[in-house]
Amino acid sequence: MRVVVIGQGMAASYLEVGLERLKRNEIPDYGVPLRDWVPVKYDDIEIVAAYDVDERKIGKTAYELAREYFNSSTIPGKLKEIQVRRGIHLGSLKGLPYKARGLEEKYGLEKSIEMLVDEWKSFNADVFLNVITTEPVEPIHSVDELEARVKEGYLTASQAYAYAVAQYARRVKPAVLINAIPSPVATDQAFVDLYKASNAVVFGDDAATGATPLTADLLEHLFQRNRRVLDIAQFNIGGNTDFLALTEPERNIMKKKTKSSMVSDILGYEAPNYIRPTGFLEPLGDKKFVAMIIEYMSFGDFKDEIYVIMRVNDKPAIVGVLIDLIRLGKIALERGLYGTVYEVNAFYTKKPGPPGVKAVSKVKAFYRLLDWLGIKDPRGI
Amino acid sequence: MRVVVIGQGMAASYLEVGLERLKRNEIPDYGVPLRDWVPVKYDDIEIVAAYDVDERKIGKTAYELAREYFNSSTIPGKLKEIQVRRGIHLGSLKGLPYKARGLEEKYGLEKSIEMLVDEWKSFNADVFLNVITTEPVEPIHSVDELEARVKEGYLTASQAYAYAVAQYARRVKPAVLINAIPSPVATDQAFVDLYKASNAVVFGDDAATGATPLTADLLEHLFQRNRRVLDIAQFNIGGNTDFLALTEPERNIMKKKTKSSMVSDILGYEAPNYIRPTGFLEPLGDKKFVAMIIEYMSFGDFKDEIYVIMRVNDKPAIVGVLIDLIRLGKIALERGLYGTVYEVNAFYTKKPGPPGVKAVSKVKAFYRLLDWLGIKDPRGI
Amino acid sequence: MRVVVIGQGMAASYLEVGLERLKRNEIPDYGVPLRDWVPVKYDDIEIVAAYDVDERKIGKTAYELAREYFNSSTIPGKLKEIQVRRGIHLGSLKGLPYKARGLEEKYGLEKSIEMLVDEWKSFNADVFLNVITTEPVEPIHSVDELEARVKEGYLTASQAYAYAVAQYARRVKPAVLINAIPSPVATDQAFVDLYKASNAVVFGDDAATGATPLTADLLEHLFQRNRRVLDIAQFNIGGNTDFLALTEPERNIMKKKTKSSMVSDILGYEAPNYIRPTGFLEPLGDKKFVAMIIEYMSFGDFKDEIYVIMRVNDKPAIVGVLIDLIRLGKIALERGLYGTVYEVNAFYTKKPGPPGVKAVSKVKAFYRLLDWLGIKDPRGI
Amino acid sequence: MRVVVIGQGMAASYLEVGLERLKRNEIPDYGVPLRDWVPVKYDDIEIVAAYDVDERKIGKTAYELAREYFNSSTIPGKLKEIQVRRGIHLGSLKGLPYKARGLEEKYGLEKSIEMLVDEWKSFNADVFLNVITTEPVEPIHSVDELEARVKEGYLTASQAYAYAVAQYARRVKPAVLINAIPSPVATDQAFVDLYKASNAVVFGDDAATGATPLTADLLEHLFQRNRRVLDIAQFNIGGNTDFLALTEPERNIMKKKTKSSMVSDILGYEAPNYIRPTGFLEPLGDKKFVAMIIEYMSFGDFKDEIYVIMRVNDKPAIVGVLIDLIRLGKIALERGLYGTVYEVNAFYTKKPGPPGVKAVSKVKAFYRLLDWLGIKDPRGI
Repeated sequence: MRVVVIGQGMAASYLEVGLERLKRNEIPDYGVPLRDWVPVKYDDIEIVAAYDVDERKIGKTAYELAREYFNSSTIPGKLKEIQVRRGIHLGSLKGLPYKARGLEEKYGLEKSIEMLVDEWKSFNADVFLNVITTEPVEPIHSVDELEARVKEGYLTASQAYAYAVAQYARRVKPAVLINAIPSPVATDQAFVDLYKASNAVVFGDDAATGATPLTADLLEHLFQRNRRVLDIAQFNIGGNTDFLALTEPERNIMKKKTKSSMVSDILGYEAPNYIRPTGFLEPLGDKKFVAMIIEYMSFGDFKDEIYVIMRVNDKPAIVGVLIDLIRLGKIALERGLYGTVYEVNAFYTKKPGPPGVKAVSKVKAFYRLLDWLGIKDPRGI
Repeated sequence: MRVVVIGQGMAASYLEVGLERLKRNEIPDYGVPLRDWVPVKYDDIEIVAAYDVDERKIGKTAYELAREYFNSSTIPGKLKEIQVRRGIHLGSLKGLPYKARGLEEKYGLEKSIEMLVDEWKSFNADVFLNVITTEPVEPIHSVDELEARVKEGYLTASQAYAYAVAQYARRVKPAVLINAIPSPVATDQAFVDLYKASNAVVFGDDAATGATPLTADLLEHLFQRNRRVLDIAQFNIGGNTDFLALTEPERNIMKKKTKSSMVSDILGYEAPNYIRPTGFLEPLGDKKFVAMIIEYMSFGDFKDEIYVIMRVNDKPAIVGVLIDLIRLGKIALERGLYGTVYEVNAFYTKKPGPPGVKAVSKVKAFYRLLDWLGIKDPRGI
Repeated sequence: MRVVVIGQGMAASYLEVGLERLKRNEIPDYGVPLRDWVPVKYDDIEIVAAYDVDERKIGKTAYELAREYFNSSTIPGKLKEIQVRRGIHLGSLKGLPYKARGLEEKYGLEKSIEMLVDEWKSFNADVFLNVITTEPVEPIHSVDELEARVKEGYLTASQAYAYAVAQYARRVKPAVLINAIPSPVATDQAFVDLYKASNAVVFGDDAATGATPLTADLLEHLFQRNRRVLDIAQFNIGGNTDFLALTEPERNIMKKKTKSSMVSDILGYEAPNYIRPTGFLEPLGDKKFVAMIIEYMSFGDFKDEIYVIMRVNDKPAIVGVLIDLIRLGKIALERGLYGTVYEVNAFYTKKPGPPGVKAVSKVKAFYRLLDWLGIKDPRGI
Repeated sequence: MRVVVIGQGMAASYLEVGLERLKRNEIPDYGVPLRDWVPVKYDDIEIVAAYDVDERKIGKTAYELAREYFNSSTIPGKLKEIQVRRGIHLGSLKGLPYKARGLEEKYGLEKSIEMLVDEWKSFNADVFLNVITTEPVEPIHSVDELEARVKEGYLTASQAYAYAVAQYARRVKPAVLINAIPSPVATDQAFVDLYKASNAVVFGDDAATGATPLTADLLEHLFQRNRRVLDIAQFNIGGNTDFLALTEPERNIMKKKTKSSMVSDILGYEAPNYIRPTGFLEPLGDKKFVAMIIEYMSFGDFKDEIYVIMRVNDKPAIVGVLIDLIRLGKIALERGLYGTVYEVNAFYTKKPGPPGVKAVSKVKAFYRLLDWLGIKDPRGI
């Protein structure tokens, strides 16, 4: 699987470093849900290119950029082969303190997309990974409208990349897009239809890490006991770029939407909730702090409370998910499952596509995924 | 279902009051996992007798005893019909500040068991609920050994009651024992064999409420993500009689055993852990305080931490479970499933019988239970 | 002490009910810091009038309004004597879902102030308690500017009331204003000067309850050990009107300002922090949820973490403070300490006046207060 | 100040490494309460000898032993000059998995004490630091009884060392003992009298770090607001030798006693509490986990709850305290304050001597200490 990374930020660096170290047996595969259970091995994955629009990054190698986060001694030399190229901007970094410029500013959008498809062909790419910064965006719904938007240049970077991947699949070879951010792609009927028609697969949307999957499983735990949830409050604070970006109300709203629908999908009723990224506090770095309260009614009109505090490394959590999604991409292509695959999305994403499906607790989604893969629980239970 | 309660303590009072209020629609059925999904209704349950060995309780009605915990205005008058009778002691309250005397002190054990069977026949009982105080005890393993022990009077109160229920089932009618405490009954091959041969069913052991099921589900959550658990510490402190009893090391050890095996069963490896009831603090009353830390490795050698604090009402949590187990008892009898039923035990107990089976995360056990019942998830997911 | 309450909200109701019950020995004086240590007794306090601008409240009695929060059986009949009168609005409820109208809309501001002074004279009032909703406002700085603003009607409700109290003190008798909200009065040089010249005392600003004093004392604890604070995050969420009001960014900013300066005042250096009211979640009601993390460096470059979770009743905490401030008002008047009194403000408020003084840990302020009062620590330590 | 370390365990290694690094400006002095406020500088401290009874340690250098905890690159070479010598055992490591032998087994106790005094004379020692493992022991009360016990050899290692230091002070030069463990020395009248008569000073008992001082200050916070504490539960779990030792009930009881008296001393009434080291969990290492709940009544019969979780490095916390106590030892000697010094003990220890004094909140003790030292609060508040 030849992988193109879109958005050379912290998650990309952690993936690039982690994957190579994993292939060289320098680290265990903790945090990779499917570990060695699937026939696609870690060695089968190769990252071949990376894209960004931040002027400080373009032209640098993944090796140089990884130094911001890692000791030189732990960065595999192989990362020197990955050079960061200019991608599509369309305002995706607007408002953030970075100087950014996209291909489209010089060549226009349609021409830029064609250029990307040609580059990708030269890399013989199979999988595209969207890990750009969260952007404010709504679904497009129909392929016609999408085509019109491409002509007008009226879409976001994620949408433009997603469109380009479909073109690539149609013209070059079947391909997979992993949409790890909240922008609707696997949950936008326009893209699901386009991908089905283009021999492409999209997994998404919004890779599920951190507090959201845990909250989902806690809610399932309460549902199974018929405990009546009165309210849920969940705060997140961190010091990485994601949290900085989410201090903008428009980007923050993207996250909040994802999380609230989950509550009623799992519980079967509306429970008042306040769940969203809350603040940016630079010294926390990538280790974020989550605080949560759940109040519920137990039998006989008694009220109970659960408090959860988590201190988690944000990016490592997503990397394990991405490594699985890349491998599952190969399996989906082999099975010819074009469009999107609910069984995969349900476990690995916060907002599983296709549009219209319900969220489900992760714990349930995991067993469904194992069934889909034909894997038996190795614990024999 | 005509129910005999063994051990007229706080759990019994909460059940007696709660069940009647539920039947009268004064409270919702929150905390009852199977709610109205099974064909056995709350109205089908009737508590017909209660047993204890505490001299202050014997001869009183369930109504009088409920006053210790409830306002008179909320105690259903029907509880005046349940009178507490003298049961078997065999030292079960030894060391606790109560004056206790059992039938066996006057009549010997074999005669006492016969007397109980006769009384139960007069009540036309179907279900027996063991909610006596946690006692130190080991499994007996074989029916022959059990019979020998009965003769010598060398067993605990739970074992004597469990034996008596089998005699009742054999002589009077098929019956169900719900063993809500840690004493091995459903996990003692002696009783499983005896029950199979006696047209009796035992559910057990140790009704799962409070922190243990939540811990199980958190561990499943981590297993599913291949996060490597480094250590688990869990403290429990409360102010009810259970916690007072568990300040005795011998009784405490019963709880610790239950909990540690769960960790390796669910994770698939041994993770260092400290999980046990920790202390008694009277003003906490029935609202116990649980604190837990779990440390684990995420991808790329990063360490994360989860802290959980719970403030839960102890007895209400168990009552919801008991109401389901009584109803499931009827279903098991109808299906003729004598011995014990793993599908029921796996979700509702901490130490599911029969002996030798593995613990499983509760979330998984729940779906298995629904399958066994032929119930579809009403959320349609 | 004859007290006029300005802002007949939840805090007012809790004060009115609590004070009467305290005088009747129905409740202990827990939560009143100075308990029976000062010569002014609870019986010496009488609430004689209340003001508001919410049309649903004006004309009603404190008794009727207390019913929203209390069982009729616990509301003292004496509250029927307190009738809610129309006060000054000046937009103080703008943006909140209430229909509000102030005296000034009919009579203009200057005339309204005169009317109030006359009314207060008829009540023979001594103390005025400002507990209106948090309003966005900046200090005025000079008495001249203040006088000009009164003429133009260009000030907030708190400022108008504070001005009116000064007029009252000048024309009728020395008086005390307790400014329990964040609006700058004791920290506005304009008012401190005006009060000094008018034989009036103002205590303020922003009564210290909940998480802020605890944070102050935790920071003092760390300062005393020379532990280097790396970052502080503190979230607050609640379901009462205060939290609803603070969902408006303009009002929220008032709270954030108060809290951040405290950190550097106590630690002696700037520590990155995120401390502010975070959200509104209606089912929490008056019982708010606070979550806090503090990271600091210990000796030898080791990092430690403290997590705090609080579940506190918001209004009861403020009532204890108000009862002390009313009593301290009497003592300040007796001593002729016109203007403001730092020794009082330092312990009881979040933003102690006069302007320019530093915040101090509460624990230190308490001993300073006892010194000022001439009280010896009854524990003899 | 020439310092002799008694008990070459983890705390000793952390002190030896930390102090040298501090003197070489490799680390900041975070965690040292008095920082550069006192005239005794870090450079004035020199560790000249160390004692232990663990056969694996005797004869090794502090440098070699520090390797168990630190990278060689961070261990100052100077530690090669400190060789571990055989001290007094008297069963202090009984029951722990170490092979231990004391001088007294060969020479008898009286002779051993004489030998130590002679060795110490050759080092020209000023300060003795007792950081041996917690031992079960009761106070002796009178000097006569103490002398008798020395003759019989019927005392603990701490008592024998404390006696030896007094002999040293009497025969060689005035000296200081810092008793950092719970054994009663500063709180045993026998030693206070003996030290006064011997030109010696003892600081103690039980250096205050971790959760106890924080609990003290939280209780002071509640006392100052007249909040009525209903109950306190506090759990500690860790993975260092201290926690291993405290799994023995006899040693654990030493810690529990210390902590419970503090509660009533600070609050002025008995509040039910469960405060003690709870468990040993090896992977936690030196980073211990503390969980605490405090329930209290606020004004108007409302109940509030505070939950605290701490993750703290255990040994670094004590080292900061020891560095101050060594320096304060010099000041006490200069002032000729023989016996013990309450002003020092009150802030730095859990069980401040002399016997009979009350515990006091640490926050209050800190100001008293500054007064005693003649230091003004540098924040000017």
